[in-house]
Amino acid sequence: MRIAVDAMGGDHAPSEIVKGALQAALEMPEVTIILVGDTEQIKTHLGANVPSNVEIVHADDVIGPDDEPVKAVRRKKGSSMVMAGQMVRDGQAEAMMSAGNTGALMTTALLVVGRLEGIERPALGTMLPTMDDAGVLALDLGANMDAKPEHLLQYAIMGSIYRARMNGLDKPRVGLLNVGTEAMKGNELTKAAFDLLEAAPIHFIGNVEARDVLVRNCDVLICDGFAGNIMLKAMEGTAGTLFKTLRDIFSNSLITKLAASVLMPKLRVLRKKMDYNEHGGAPLLGINGLVFKCHGSSDVKAVRNTVRQAKLAIQSNLVSSIAAEISRK
Amino acid sequence: MRIAVDAMGGDHAPSEIVKGALQAALEMPEVTIILVGDTEQIKTHLGANVPSNVEIVHADDVIGPDDEPVKAVRRKKGSSMVMAGQMVRDGQAEAMMSAGNTGALMTTALLVVGRLEGIERPALGTMLPTMDDAGVLALDLGANMDAKPEHLLQYAIMGSIYRARMNGLDKPRVGLLNVGTEAMKGNELTKAAFDLLEAAPIHFIGNVEARDVLVRNCDVLICDGFAGNIMLKAMEGTAGTLFKTLRDIFSNSLITKLAASVLMPKLRVLRKKMDYNEHGGAPLLGINGLVFKCHGSSDVKAVRNTVRQAKLAIQSNLVSSIAAEISRK
Repeated sequence: MRIAVDAMGGDHAPSEIVKGALQAALEMPEVTIILVGDTEQIKTHLGANVPSNVEIVHADDVIGPDDEPVKAVRRKKGSSMVMAGQMVRDGQAEAMMSAGNTGALMTTALLVVGRLEGIERPALGTMLPTMDDAGVLALDLGANMDAKPEHLLQYAIMGSIYRARMNGLDKPRVGLLNVGTEAMKGNELTKAAFDLLEAAPIHFIGNVEARDVLVRNCDVLICDGFAGNIMLKAMEGTAGTLFKTLRDIFSNSLITKLAASVLMPKLRVLRKKMDYNEHGGAPLLGINGLVFKCHGSSDVKAVRNTVRQAKLAIQSNLVSSIAAEISRK
Repeated sequence: MRIAVDAMGGDHAPSEIVKGALQAALEMPEVTIILVGDTEQIKTHLGANVPSNVEIVHADDVIGPDDEPVKAVRRKKGSSMVMAGQMVRDGQAEAMMSAGNTGALMTTALLVVGRLEGIERPALGTMLPTMDDAGVLALDLGANMDAKPEHLLQYAIMGSIYRARMNGLDKPRVGLLNVGTEAMKGNELTKAAFDLLEAAPIHFIGNVEARDVLVRNCDVLICDGFAGNIMLKAMEGTAGTLFKTLRDIFSNSLITKLAASVLMPKLRVLRKKMDYNEHGGAPLLGINGLVFKCHGSSDVKAVRNTVRQAKLAIQSNLVSSIAAEISRK
């Protein structure tokens, strides 16, 4: 198995990316890691003992966080991200991953790797944290703002296959994000999508509410990118504000500090649970190849976890499963 | 001043509604409270000493929580809710309030009281809690699912006037709920609304994110009902789940219980802050009269607070201010 890693994308690139890839290579000797980026910089972070399953492919250029996605992908053919995409397109790698510019990665996936036939719009699947740690795969949380009912249907089919193949779920429960659980709730988009989802070859459990996502009311959450992003940020903002206020309460006096110190270890676990960045890479589904987006702030652990995901996706024939299901319709 | 109170609507009607109205009448002798509902039941809860500024108007019928709104309002002309609406329409009361069926109350406002000329769609303004307790008035959080850019513009104008008149804000900051703060962010709706809001006679501060609502990133938050409701429920769900998990952590052992007891008083304050039901009634803006929606679970305090709000709205000529601004365009 060959996985191309954009060594230059992300807040902590290339250091953390290279070190994470190195760890993954040591852990999974059956995987060959191809680090794409500036050879000199990559070598510095690789150190002296480079395992035989780590290769370097030199790239002169880098797509930065502020680059305009489409323009950057079209012009910077020699960038680490685009070159990693070319390797997937040309069969030199079975998967690629990047912690760089999200828009540029989506554009690379679309324009360089290409979309699967029959897919109207690829989607980024993000694992939302849940209290039981099993997570909810949400499509989409903001990669595409407006969606049509047919897009939501394809998100549901792709998400369902992902959870079945990657997490071994027998019948992943697909829920439609809505303002109430009754069938007729919602706006024009969700009402039309509801009917399509009911007729689809998935385990559709109906409308689900944002208030219950943390207790895992479904395994695959379907929403348009606008509503999904609003939900995600409302959850993050509420958790962040509450934890900040708790800190203020705890540091109020000597006695509250003492009391807080007893509770702190468990609160840290809770805080970590709520951090959706902990959940590794997000798959770009609907692409004719495996593309994973790592969070911009990815560290060694996040990179290693995403390599594991990519390996599992290769082994489970994720892309061909999705292609088969979509062409069946 | 005369305020009609639907004595029969709400989870705790008529008991809590009547008692709350009684408290309001004692506190505000300049306000006459008209309790609309079953005379016998109302009298039971009023007790022996009824102040002279409390009147009863008998209503035979009640609109229940499961009644289909439009049908109920059309057929149940003798219901307490519809009769309270008729009193506002006929000038027998300057405001009405109800803790009953939200859809039916909106329908009563539209079909019985009537909308203001030039208003395309009335909106329910809900006060979202903020950490500084000043609150954010959100329009709309789910009364109307789909919205056009022009609707959002009218929400902004009405909400702005409400905060200025009711809370004495000089230039209420109007924010557009979006997935990022940059001007070009969002879906088709928010992009079109952004341009309208920029040209409007309001203090538009641009796009705001759901993650910052709790720290009061604006005074008036504009959104379509679908996205607003998703945001509200994501906030409620996250806060609810976190507080529940805190309780579990606290009750873990004797020592954690002891530690928790030190922190509990402050945590209760925080929990209360987060409860958007604490913020009294929600005004229905764009109606040719004052209509307030109390939360279904309203207690004595909530009812009393909403009477105070209604009184302030009458004194500040809220409806004619909105009418004047809308007709100016």
